[in-house]
Amino acid sequence: MTPSFTPTKMGSMIYLDHHSATRPCEPAIERMGPFLKEQWGASFAPHRMGQELVFALDTRYQMIYDLVAASEKDQFVFTSSGAEAINQVFWSVFVEKARKEGKCHIIISQIEDAPVMQCAKRLEELGCIIKVAPVDENGQIDVEKLAELVNPRTALISLTMAHGLTGVIQPVEEIIQLAKEKNVLLHLDATYAVGKYPFIFESDYLTFSGDRIHSVKGSGALFAKEGAPLVPFILGGSEQNSLRGGAFDVPSFMALSAAAQQAMLYLDMMALEVVRLRDLFESEVKGTVLFKDTMRLPNTTAIAFEKVHQEALLYYLNRKGVYATIGGSYAGHLSKISENAISFSLSRMTTEEEVLKAAAIINETVLQLQAISEAL
Amino acid sequence: MTPSFTPTKMGSMIYLDHHSATRPCEPAIERMGPFLKEQWGASFAPHRMGQELVFALDTRYQMIYDLVAASEKDQFVFTSSGAEAINQVFWSVFVEKARKEGKCHIIISQIEDAPVMQCAKRLEELGCIIKVAPVDENGQIDVEKLAELVNPRTALISLTMAHGLTGVIQPVEEIIQLAKEKNVLLHLDATYAVGKYPFIFESDYLTFSGDRIHSVKGSGALFAKEGAPLVPFILGGSEQNSLRGGAFDVPSFMALSAAAQQAMLYLDMMALEVVRLRDLFESEVKGTVLFKDTMRLPNTTAIAFEKVHQEALLYYLNRKGVYATIGGSYAGHLSKISENAISFSLSRMTTEEEVLKAAAIINETVLQLQAISEAL
Repeated sequence: MTPSFTPTKMGSMIYLDHHSATRPCEPAIERMGPFLKEQWGASFAPHRMGQELVFALDTRYQMIYDLVAASEKDQFVFTSSGAEAINQVFWSVFVEKARKEGKCHIIISQIEDAPVMQCAKRLEELGCIIKVAPVDENGQIDVEKLAELVNPRTALISLTMAHGLTGVIQPVEEIIQLAKEKNVLLHLDATYAVGKYPFIFESDYLTFSGDRIHSVKGSGALFAKEGAPLVPFILGGSEQNSLRGGAFDVPSFMALSAAAQQAMLYLDMMALEVVRLRDLFESEVKGTVLFKDTMRLPNTTAIAFEKVHQEALLYYLNRKGVYATIGGSYAGHLSKISENAISFSLSRMTTEEEVLKAAAIINETVLQLQAISEAL
Repeated sequence: MTPSFTPTKMGSMIYLDHHSATRPCEPAIERMGPFLKEQWGASFAPHRMGQELVFALDTRYQMIYDLVAASEKDQFVFTSSGAEAINQVFWSVFVEKARKEGKCHIIISQIEDAPVMQCAKRLEELGCIIKVAPVDENGQIDVEKLAELVNPRTALISLTMAHGLTGVIQPVEEIIQLAKEKNVLLHLDATYAVGKYPFIFESDYLTFSGDRIHSVKGSGALFAKEGAPLVPFILGGSEQNSLRGGAFDVPSFMALSAAAQQAMLYLDMMALEVVRLRDLFESEVKGTVLFKDTMRLPNTTAIAFEKVHQEALLYYLNRKGVYATIGGSYAGHLSKISENAISFSLSRMTTEEEVLKAAAIINETVLQLQAISEAL
């Protein structure tokens, strides 16, 4: 099968889909090198090739802890993805709460991504009861209605901190308060929030994926508070305090650690320069910004265009080298909110030139599509 | 914390622990490069950064299929490790056979590694019945006794193709025959067999780990025959035909594909040069080779030394730069067979000079330890 186009060259495209993937930063890639080429031993090996890794790893956890302001008492599991981390949270709650204590009610929200939705479904098949909290007209989880769903058998509330497509930030403080009052475990999916604004890990679980913070694919993170149930999901040995089987993927962990350090350094830039570019983009693009008055991520905007279907616009933008998204399956699809909207997400690597050029291409394409739509 | 020694330099050590990890080969590392630095998009992304990956991936599956002589009808899931692949096999059998059909008996052997042992235990906690097949004095699974364990409710037999520490190859042909006759699913853990000798994927499931065939950590493989139950273990989206959630780790997959291609090219070398070096090593080392008369892997030898405890010998060999192993937890520990034995495993990267030097160091160390032992 011959590809009908040559691979993308950097520069010939404007990448505004940091929702789906981010470019691994140089420090992340560089940090992997020695662990691919020289210190490639298994960290469990009973000799120097293993022992030296223990030292090398030791200092590199701190950068990941720092990014989410975790304390040294918090447990951490390095996983292959944010999805795997979420699977481990749900499995831990199932084993320790549902099976052992009979607390088998779990609450998620309407706007969760595929991992949370599917993990909830798996637990439902295993006998748990799943309830779904609604969001209000601001795109935020309705905390009052969420509170009404909690009962004495509720084991877990699992929610995203911010919606990846609209950027709407959830009322996390209130939800943390609620979970504490009701004595319910709280998992926050930080996939889109981490590295975008500073926060402190205060829930029982926190998960995120390295590939959204300029680390490599194959790197994910699970934090759990001391005392929060935590059992291995992938079984197979005593790696990571017996919390995850399989050889510890040292190079990818090193990449995550370096990317976390970079994300921390660039947090201010997110709050200033990336916000400025996002606002510039929104002012240039002729469309309606969704949830503009709600607290949103600094890098994300969902914009609706009258008389334009999102699929058509996405298709033509792709052909013109502007890459955006409308999301994937499950609730993580913009069509649930608007069939005319597209989501654009910037990163610290996005430039003003790109933003202006993208806006011009979008405006032009929207006009073309509206003309076609009217001619039909 | 300051490390008390400098990182290992290649050349200052003799690495004979290819049981635990192998050095990623150049083609594996090189193949990752473009997918870390340029084509870093998500393969599910609705634009060229995703679409171009589909083409790039398309041709690279073949090398992995070729290594185990799989047919194009066979299903393949790229996982983060062999352990994860094994978890998926057990989970698939649990969901589709135990829960849906009530076939909840599972047979493993005495000599399985941690992933199979622990996955069996998890299924036992979920209500399955686990039976353990014994091995005979040749280190091989007793096929007659295995057959006696099968009953109409047996869903799965899960066995290793070769023991990682002794190198003993299991009577796989007979076991495949047995499983077919009894209509029981068969999983073969090919972790230590793959890349060591040619074989054809004929069981229902086959799993292995990239880090044992000179790929990178974070790469694993699961093959399943058409019709063998297969459901996702890590949930979270529609990647890999909805068989594994989380962003597809393209760079690590590319590394596995390149490493598989190399392993295929070097199969003859395994059967000739690596065997020659292993035999040379065995003839030079003054000890008793375990299971010498049984069919063994070309690269592995377990050698027992009179009046020497394996832990002490391992410790001193490590100090002298000879890296070997006695295995990990569970049945994958040599002490279950002999407390005087150490396992050495070569690779295509091992040289004659290394083998001779290691043998001399081992002989010297064994004499020293025997002298101490006699003096006590």
